[in-house]
This record gives sequence, C-alpha cells and structure tokens, in this order.
Amino acid sequence: MTAHVIVRDFERVDPALAEGLAALGVSTVHEADQRRGALAPEIRPIQSGVCIAGPAVTVSCHPGDNLMIHAAVETCRPGDVVVVATTSPSTDGMLGELLATSLRAHGAIGVVLDAGVRDVAQLRAMGFPVWARAISPRGTVKASPGSVNVPVVCAGQVVYPGDAIVADDDGVVVVPRARAAAVLEAGRRREAAEAGKRERLAAGELGVDMYNLRPLLAELGVSYLDRPPT
Amino acid sequence: MTAHVIVRDFERVDPALAEGLAALGVSTVHEADQRRGALAPEIRPIQSGVCIAGPAVTVSCHPGDNLMIHAAVETCRPGDVVVVATTSPSTDGMLGELLATSLRAHGAIGVVLDAGVRDVAQLRAMGFPVWARAISPRGTVKASPGSVNVPVVCAGQVVYPGDAIVADDDGVVVVPRARAAAVLEAGRRREAAEAGKRERLAAGELGVDMYNLRPLLAELGVSYLDRPPT
Amino acid sequence: MTAHVIVRDFERVDPALAEGLAALGVSTVHEADQRRGALAPEIRPIQSGVCIAGPAVTVSCHPGDNLMIHAAVETCRPGDVVVVATTSPSTDGMLGELLATSLRAHGAIGVVLDAGVRDVAQLRAMGFPVWARAISPRGTVKASPGSVNVPVVCAGQVVYPGDAIVADDDGVVVVPRARAAAVLEAGRRREAAEAGKRERLAAGELGVDMYNLRPLLAELGVSYLDRPPT
Amino acid sequence: MTAHVIVRDFERVDPALAEGLAALGVSTVHEADQRRGALAPEIRPIQSGVCIAGPAVTVSCHPGDNLMIHAAVETCRPGDVVVVATTSPSTDGMLGELLATSLRAHGAIGVVLDAGVRDVAQLRAMGFPVWARAISPRGTVKASPGSVNVPVVCAGQVVYPGDAIVADDDGVVVVPRARAAAVLEAGRRREAAEAGKRERLAAGELGVDMYNLRPLLAELGVSYLDRPPT
Amino acid sequence: MTAHVIVRDFERVDPALAEGLAALGVSTVHEADQRRGALAPEIRPIQSGVCIAGPAVTVSCHPGDNLMIHAAVETCRPGDVVVVATTSPSTDGMLGELLATSLRAHGAIGVVLDAGVRDVAQLRAMGFPVWARAISPRGTVKASPGSVNVPVVCAGQVVYPGDAIVADDDGVVVVPRARAAAVLEAGRRREAAEAGKRERLAAGELGVDMYNLRPLLAELGVSYLDRPPT
Amino acid sequence: MTAHVIVRDFERVDPALAEGLAALGVSTVHEADQRRGALAPEIRPIQSGVCIAGPAVTVSCHPGDNLMIHAAVETCRPGDVVVVATTSPSTDGMLGELLATSLRAHGAIGVVLDAGVRDVAQLRAMGFPVWARAISPRGTVKASPGSVNVPVVCAGQVVYPGDAIVADDDGVVVVPRARAAAVLEAGRRREAAEAGKRERLAAGELGVDMYNLRPLLAELGVSYLDRPPT
Repeated sequence: MTAHVIVRDFERVDPALAEGLAALGVSTVHEADQRRGALAPEIRPIQSGVCIAGPAVTVSCHPGDNLMIHAAVETCRPGDVVVVATTSPSTDGMLGELLATSLRAHGAIGVVLDAGVRDVAQLRAMGFPVWARAISPRGTVKASPGSVNVPVVCAGQVVYPGDAIVADDDGVVVVPRARAAAVLEAGRRREAAEAGKRERLAAGELGVDMYNLRPLLAELGVSYLDRPPT
Repeated sequence: MTAHVIVRDFERVDPALAEGLAALGVSTVHEADQRRGALAPEIRPIQSGVCIAGPAVTVSCHPGDNLMIHAAVETCRPGDVVVVATTSPSTDGMLGELLATSLRAHGAIGVVLDAGVRDVAQLRAMGFPVWARAISPRGTVKASPGSVNVPVVCAGQVVYPGDAIVADDDGVVVVPRARAAAVLEAGRRREAAEAGKRERLAAGELGVDMYNLRPLLAELGVSYLDRPPT
Repeated sequence: MTAHVIVRDFERVDPALAEGLAALGVSTVHEADQRRGALAPEIRPIQSGVCIAGPAVTVSCHPGDNLMIHAAVETCRPGDVVVVATTSPSTDGMLGELLATSLRAHGAIGVVLDAGVRDVAQLRAMGFPVWARAISPRGTVKASPGSVNVPVVCAGQVVYPGDAIVADDDGVVVVPRARAAAVLEAGRRREAAEAGKRERLAAGELGVDMYNLRPLLAELGVSYLDRPPT
Repeated sequence: MTAHVIVRDFERVDPALAEGLAALGVSTVHEADQRRGALAPEIRPIQSGVCIAGPAVTVSCHPGDNLMIHAAVETCRPGDVVVVATTSPSTDGMLGELLATSLRAHGAIGVVLDAGVRDVAQLRAMGFPVWARAISPRGTVKASPGSVNVPVVCAGQVVYPGDAIVADDDGVVVVPRARAAAVLEAGRRREAAEAGKRERLAAGELGVDMYNLRPLLAELGVSYLDRPPT
Repeated sequence: MTAHVIVRDFERVDPALAEGLAALGVSTVHEADQRRGALAPEIRPIQSGVCIAGPAVTVSCHPGDNLMIHAAVETCRPGDVVVVATTSPSTDGMLGELLATSLRAHGAIGVVLDAGVRDVAQLRAMGFPVWARAISPRGTVKASPGSVNVPVVCAGQVVYPGDAIVADDDGVVVVPRARAAAVLEAGRRREAAEAGKRERLAAGELGVDMYNLRPLLAELGVSYLDRPPT
Repeated sequence: MTAHVIVRDFERVDPALAEGLAALGVSTVHEADQRRGALAPEIRPIQSGVCIAGPAVTVSCHPGDNLMIHAAVETCRPGDVVVVATTSPSTDGMLGELLATSLRAHGAIGVVLDAGVRDVAQLRAMGFPVWARAISPRGTVKASPGSVNVPVVCAGQVVYPGDAIVADDDGVVVVPRARAAAVLEAGRRREAAEAGKRERLAAGELGVDMYNLRPLLAELGVSYLDRPPT
C-alpha cells in the first residue's frame, strides 16, 4: 500500500491519433466522444490561437509544492502534454519559465495545470503553451511527496497517463487512450457533417427544421404566441 | 397558466436609438440611466474593441440545454441582440459556430449568454461578437422546454424582449425600451460634459475642487494629517 | 480615535529601487523577498506586456463609493502607484477614464484596485495601466468616508503608503519600503543565477539533479516503478 | 425619469392564499408553479424548522447601505415579508436586532436578504426568521438613495411588491400575486398525489415503473449490463 | 462505444469492513489511507452527529436532471450509499423526500450528492442522512441519459461502484474496495496510537517535542525571538 | 532579513478588557470601533451560542501544512485565542481534536482559522470553540516553515499578536490592543443607547423619525408615491 510512486513509462496514445485530434479541436473531440472528458472551464489558456494534442504525463502535487513536476521531467517523451493536479485546490504559481524550459528540453509540448502558472510574459515569448486555473506569482516549495504517471483527477476529469489530451482556445478535453481511434473517426464524420449544416444554416434554413425540433417543442408543451401576453 | 411559450413578435427599441446608444458605450449609458441596468461583471466579451447595441430577443433555457436558442432563431430581425438566461446557473457551451451562423443569417448582430460559449476561435474569425459567463467545450442537449421572448433575468437584470442591449469591453447594460430615448439624450449631455471635465482634469484641476467634494469630506469627518500618525 | 484621515505626505521608496524592481518583474521580486507580498491572483491586468513599479499611495473606500480616490489625487507624486482597497468586497467600477486622467496629471503611473474598473477601452488607448479584480460598468457614489495613505489590506496583503508596488502580467507584489534595497539585491542575484540554470535546463540537465532532489524524494518515501502497477 | 421612489401602498396577495402556500412549503410551491420562482440557494435561513409566507415589501439598496430598509418600515402591514436586494453584490450585515424589532412592530413576519444579517443570536432568541446570503458583523451606512416597493431582482428572481414570498428550510420562492390562487390549487393537488406515491414507493414500487420511465431510458439509448464491462 | 449504461450488479466492499470504517470516522479513515479520498469540503451534511459507511452505488446525471437516480434505485442493496455526480456543476435539488423514501425502501442508508437536495425538513424527520453541495428547492427534469454504477468523479474524487463511502460531520471519504481492509487496520492502529497521544497532550506535553519537530524547525531556518522585533 | 520567526512573548490586551468585549459581542464591538476589524464572513463558527474574547496568538502557515500551529502551542497563555492564516488560500483541515487538546492544555480558549478544521463532532463534544473557513477531513503535512506571533492578514484583516479577538455567532472581529479600552467604553455607551432605541422601535416609533432620516431621503432625491406607477 505505497502511496507515492513515479512511474517511468507507460503506453501512450498513438502520435498519429493525437495529431488527428488536434486538427479537430477540443469542442469537436468532446462531442465526438459523446460529450465526455471536458475539463472544467476554469482551466484557461494563457495564449490564444493554439491547439495541441498529445499523450498525458500526469503529476499529482501537494498544494503549494511543485516537487513532483520536477520529478516528472525525465519521464517526458517528445510530444507529451504534462497534466498537473493538486490534492487540494491551489492557485499558486507551480510552473514558470525555468521549469517550462526543462520540460521542453525533454519533449513536452505544453502543460495543463489545475493550479497557477507564472512568468506568463516569458512563456508567451517562448511559445510554450499552458492552460491553468490561475496566473499567480506566488512561488511554491519542494517539500512534500506526490506521484507521477498515476491516474489523477484534474479539473473534474480522470486522466490516465498516456490518454490523449487536446487543448485549444475552448479549453481542454481528455480522451482515454483506448477510445482515441474511435473518437477520431467519429470526430471526422462530425466535421464533415457540420460543413454541410453550416452551409444550410448560413443560407437561412432553420435549425428547428434541419434538426426536426418542431415535434419535440410541441411534445414538450411549448406553445406559440404571435404577440406578448398582456 | 402555461409555462413555456415562444412569442413570435414584439415591439423593438427604435434602431436609431440603438445606434446612438452604441456610440456612447456601456458605461456612459449605465450612468445616463441613473446607474441602472448593468449586468453582472462575470459576463465578459470573447473579443475586444467591439461595441454593439440592438433590441433584445430573449431566451430562457434549462441548464445544459440549448433547444430554445434554436427555437429563437426565426424570431430574430436584423439588428437584434440575443440574450440567453438559464433557469439555474450553468457554464456549459450553449452556443457555437453553427448556431452563430444561423443567428447571423437571421439578422442577429451578437449574443449575450449567462452561460458558456464554445468555438471561440471560429467566432472571433467570423467577427460574431459574444459576451458570456464562461468559455466551455461542454456540449448541451436539446431535451427540455423553455421560452422565447418573455421577460428573463440575465446576470441579475430583468430583460424584456425589445429592450435595448448595449455591450462592449466594459460589459453589458440593458435599457428598457420606454426609457431609451431619454437615456440617449441624457448620455449625450453627459458625454458633452465629460469632454470639458477631461480637459480640466488633464490640466491638473482636482476632482475634489471640480466636483466640490471638500465640504462633503469635512461633513463626513474626514480629517487631514500632514504626516502619518506615529 | 479618529477613523478617517487623509495623510498628505509620507516616506516613499527610493525611485531608483523601484526602477530596479520593475526590471526584475513581479515573480522574481516575490521570490527574492522570500515568497512574501504577492496579492491574490484575482487581481488581473487589463493590458498585457506592461511592468511598472513605484511607491504606493493607498486608498480605503466604502464599497460602491469612490470618493476617497478623488481625495487621494492631490497626494500623488510622479511615479506613484495608487492602491485601492474597499472595506467590504466589491466589483463596482470605481475608476474610469476621467479619474485616470486626473491621476496621471498628478504623476500616478498606474492603479491597483481590489474592486472594478471601467472604460477599459479608453484606458488601454491612453496606455494607463490598471490591475483590478473585475471590469464593470457599474458606477459608484461619492457619499461615504474613508482614508488615504493609511495602511490597507489589498487582496490579502498589507500595503503601507510608500511601500514599493511592482505589477506586471503575473500580477502584483508589495515590498515594504525598508526591505526594498535588500530585495532588489537578492532579486538581482537570483536573476543572475537563473540565467545559468536556464542554460543547463535547456541543455537537458534535470532539475532533480541540478537541485539535488533525488535524496529528498527517497526520504519522502517516493518510489520508482518502471511500469504502471496492474 | 425618476430613479428612486418609495411606494406607500400596493395590492397584496390574499392572506388566505399566503397561509395556504405556507402549509405546502417552498419545494411543493415551486413545483406547483411549474418550477418557477426559486431564489438562488445561496440564500439560507438563520434558523431551522420555520416556514412563512406573506406579501412582499421590496427594498432596493446600494451595497453597504441600509437606509432604504429604514424607509420601508412604515410601508409594512401585518403579515408582510420584507425582501431586500442590493444593486451590486454585498454580504454586509444590513439587518440586525434593532431593525428587526422595528419591522416586527409594524407587522413584518420575516425578512429575505440578498446580503448579510447580524445579531443572529438575538434574532433567533426573538424568533424573528431571516433568510440571507451571509451572516456578517460588518455594519452599513445610511447615505445612498434606493427604492421601496418597486420590482427588484433578488437572488435571480424578479419580485414585485405584493407577490407571495414563501420561505422555509429549503430556501425561498416567489409566486406572482396573479398566479397565487392557481399555484395553491395546483400545490394541493400535488400534495395529495404525493401521499399516494410516497406509500407506493415506501412499499418498494420502483419510480421507473410508477413514472413509466423505462421506455424513455430505452429511447435515450441507455443500455443495461449485468456486470461492469471489463 | 456506448456512452450510457446501467450496471445491475458489481462487487461490493465487505459489510464488516464498512462497519469498521464507520466506527473510525471520516478524518481517521482519510489519514489511514495516506490522506487520500477526501471529497471536496463543499459537500456538507444536512444533519449532524451521523456517521455512515457502505458500498457506493454510483450515478452520473446531466445537470438539472435526476432521471438516472430513479434508474439507480433497483440496483441498491441493503447498506448501500448512493453517490451522485453531475456532468457539469449543478446545485439543483435532485433528491427529495419521495426519492429518499424509494431509496430507503431498497436498502440505501444515505446519499452523497455533488448537487442540491430539497425537502430537508422531511429528510431530517425521516432520519435519512444526506451530504450535498447545496440545499435548493429547484426541481429537476427527467429527460437526459446518464449512467449507473460506472466510475464517476464526485467532488474531485473517483468513485467506483462498490468502493467504501464513509460520511460524517467532517465530510465524505471514498476508500477503494481493494484497500478497505488495509485501511481499516491502519485506522485502528492510528486510533489506538492517538489515545496515548491525546493523554500526553492533555497533560501539557508539547507536540513539537512529542513529534520531534524542533530539529525540523531549525533545519527549515525558523528562528526564535524572545520579543517582537522593533 | 529573516523570513520565519517564532516570537515567544509579546504584550497582550488586558484580560479585563477582553472580558468586557466578550460581553458586548462581535457586532457591537465592530460598530464601537467605527466599523473596523471585521473578518470576512466566510469565517464561520462550528458551534452556536458561544462568544469568546482574548489576546491573539498569531500563526502564519504554508497551505496544507500545520507545522507552525504545533510550534505556536508553547507560546499560548491562559485566555489566548489562536489565529491561523495561510500564505495562500486553503480549506484543508489544519486543526483537529489532538491539536485542540494541546492548545487547551496550554490555555487557549478558542481558534480562528482562515482554513479548514476537522474532528468537528469531537470539538463540539469538548466544548472547544472554533471559527473556520471550512470543515474538511483533508489532513496536512508538517514540512514547510512559517511564523508565530508576527502580524498576519487573516480573512482580510491585519492581526497583531496581543490584539483582542472577539468571536461569536456573527463572526470574528479584531481590535488593536491600543484601542481596546476606548472601544470597550464606546461599546458600552452604544449598548446603553441601544436599549432605549429598542424600546422606542418596539413601541412603533419609526427609524426614519428616530434617526431623522427624512431630510436625508429628500436631499437624495427619493420621492414618495401613494401607489405604483402605471
């Protein structure tokens, strides 16, 4: 019954699948996975216009303590996305320019933090993308144990090491490794279908007709009035 | 005693008045209406530098359900601003690129959402302005009834269909249709007065003199010290 | 036992020290002061890429009332940073373009507000930097007493008039006047040390080695596994 | 265009209807009114086991200022429930023992506050029920104008003077005066129906059978598994 | 790739282990499991002085929709604790007296809800314990699919069906089924050790001596002063 | 420039003054000190009907770490109230039965925590009063330095060691040691004055008359209407 471990290696989602998911974007992936896996919207990007996807390296930290992110660096492989959770809520700045430099040197392409980030001006200048709960200068200690590459709960979603993380301006979604191929396929079908819908809607066709919602509205007892009731 | 209705048409604020209010901006309009009508500051724009104004099309949705926004599309007229409230707090992404495309096709010039928005990169690219409580990829269902063009409470303010909605970088304000002309006139007077004040303040005149606040400070018992008390 | 005072003058942190602190930035200053003085991360800039530092002019206001900011203007000297706290939480827009114009005319280089700001488009156009808890069009009254240049608690930190305020994209930090020289020196040492660390980390050296964290991890009982437990 | 008024008198919901609604309780009334009118759950009672109902006397206050509650006292009639909203969020203690004594002397049977209350030990001892957003010792000033007996938004619901307010351990609900009789009748029907349902459920009958939910589950694509998937 | 399932049966934690954990209480169990498994403190009991433990029946609901709790009833066995999560945050009253009656009839001994509860006066009178995020009269619909007895994230913790849930005045903790025996044993050792410590501390022995913290304080650079610095 | 110290002794507010303040209660003391010193209302008692007052022993902890509370025990004297702040927000359970037993053995009469408490059933049974931000089973480590008996910011107020802390059902207020005698005297005058006011208000006299508010209402432009405007 050991509480704290660092797992050096694990199965990762196929890089080609990750690439495909990044091309779809977070909201489409979330829909394609039957509306599962979206992290809480409090997790926001510090940059705009960036979409990344890659396998998760997971980190569980004590609040106010970034020791385990340091410990996670050597487990990163090119293309990984580091996902950091804390055992209690925290907004402290657990990641800054130096740690980002180290993560990038070991292949990480971005970080998702259910906590705070700092040195945001430098991180934007570096082009190293981060999604975080807060921007905070408050520094952290390196004093308490945690774990690396174990299942974590990050912003309301379970993330297993190796799961696909997709992050863009809409937020962050996690897709379990075993579902990634199916989700990618469903997402591409959805994207194709949306192109046609977009055109019809732009031409003025109504969603209530296109999606056949009028019978549902009637069944739900929604009635029409020509003018406001007096 | 029917709970759920869709009102097809209603009186709208005069487009010329809306145009005038947009030129004043949210904070001036709010002051001109005697500090009424400002929605809660949690409602933020997803873009910057945009100011719009127009009559409200109102939508009341069940949380996590955007059926009624679809139902509202056909009630939009060119220049309308769609205002969406939920019956319980929600940050789910109730509006995305497709629905925005549909709303735009029917004349809507923007949306105010007391909930979440998604596809923000696409919405910014489209130039379709949105003010929302959150950005979230979480999708919604189409399963529960609601109402369109009834009075709603959105972010702490009552909005009647046809009221003037003004939205810019400072947030969102609602002006009741019947007060719009008077508010516009008061706002223009205020704007004219502010130009002179701005010049005087920029030249170093003190607000405590210009607004004659020294007698008030004395009456309130505020005293002056040359140096900190020891 | 007088509650409300306006203190006209006080000792200010040396301008050269403030300039030095601004060059270091908020997160480095916070670390250099042994992780003290960071205001809560809810205080966010309305602009990006700006770093300022200067002595604090402090203001304590009743919620929803900006009378005392007006009273503070004549106590400002060139280079000052105005710090506004409220006696109860508030997000109302206590500062707008006119008041900023007045503050700038009296030398203030920026404002930190534990409350709301408005006219943000105009403030950005003016290049007048503000850090605030909220952006809100809601106006305030001028009716209740408060104090100027007394110690205040702003976003969780005590600020004395004349203390050094440093503010950038990471947030805001306060350095007590008496510690400013020592903090500046410590910050410069830290910055110099970080340059070398950055280079080593960029070259792939691990933080767990560079900071000698492996013995600590062992002592804390963190164990390594080559693969996930089954 | 006068902003601030005190309305001395208005139509009140029939006392017999209020009495009937109090006997049903908040949750039943809310359901009977087709799930409308429930104030946000942040409004909590300071006592337990009390249910009241009566016509609303409404008050709109500036945050941190209870002047208008004082002004409202003389408009109270026996059986009224005072409903207080603030124009911006506030948790300050706007009501204490003295003001409660005054309200009771003029017939008020309780208060609903979208703000703070204090002297709670004394209020509990007096048996004067209060529902509030916070308990706070922070006192308020009497300096800013507001209104009495105008429509207000309180905790997300519009309340008109004279509407029926029902409050108990579950929270607070408002019923528009014009709907009170119909809601009472619907609530009594519901209560009668619930008695039978309670008995059947207590005997082990399943809700999925009693409410005929199995076809819905099937239609929604929910499938059954005898054991967890492996 | 089916999203929504109801799992009829699963392995449950041994009732004797649950009984043992209930006797220890939440905080001791959490410590005994190496500080894992505590749900967020926003989940509060509606009663006091009650401690329960039992295997989890898990429910995942759409916000504002309690259909799946109804579906879960027939999967309950005597001694179970029902754990309800929503796919987006919600405070709506998803559970009331009738549903509690039904759950009790099928053996459930309590409910943990990451959402709202209502009919709290009746639930207290029934002696049916509930831990919830909110008390709210707002009713829910029965319209959207979800799942029963799948892994859920509830208030920040993963709960598998059959895991041990322990809940008392301190909150709620989940213990994975496979660790329950070891945690019980560790908890009993801890409880025994605490009895001795309590006696020593009550007699005036200092924790810094009993836990040997003085060397740690010295190592961390904490120094002693006889009087405040001037 | 030492960051972390434990101050063994300091001047305490006179016990007779503390006793007098306890008899007045928090809200009266806060008013008597010109509405200063009230901690944020998020700090709530875990018991009801208790009022305590005594000199503050102050503790500054790292979030999730209660080492410094242990270090503070030996600085307590009979009648002290322990005030705990964290350097970043935290709700972890930093205090439980054992630590309370130790504090009581050294004379502490209660604790104010800007963090979490646990073992609340046991603390209530012991009759040891606590005011805290949260109730949480989450345990803390003993790993990071902090300070004892230095000025701290606790829930928005500065507390110096030896200041008078008053805490009851309304919350917590701090009175600087140097003002305690004057505040006590002002509070007693206020209490005496309130007795007369209570009687007059109970007899039906209006506050707008007793406090002479009618001229203020007129000056503020508040007008009276006999009936609602149509």
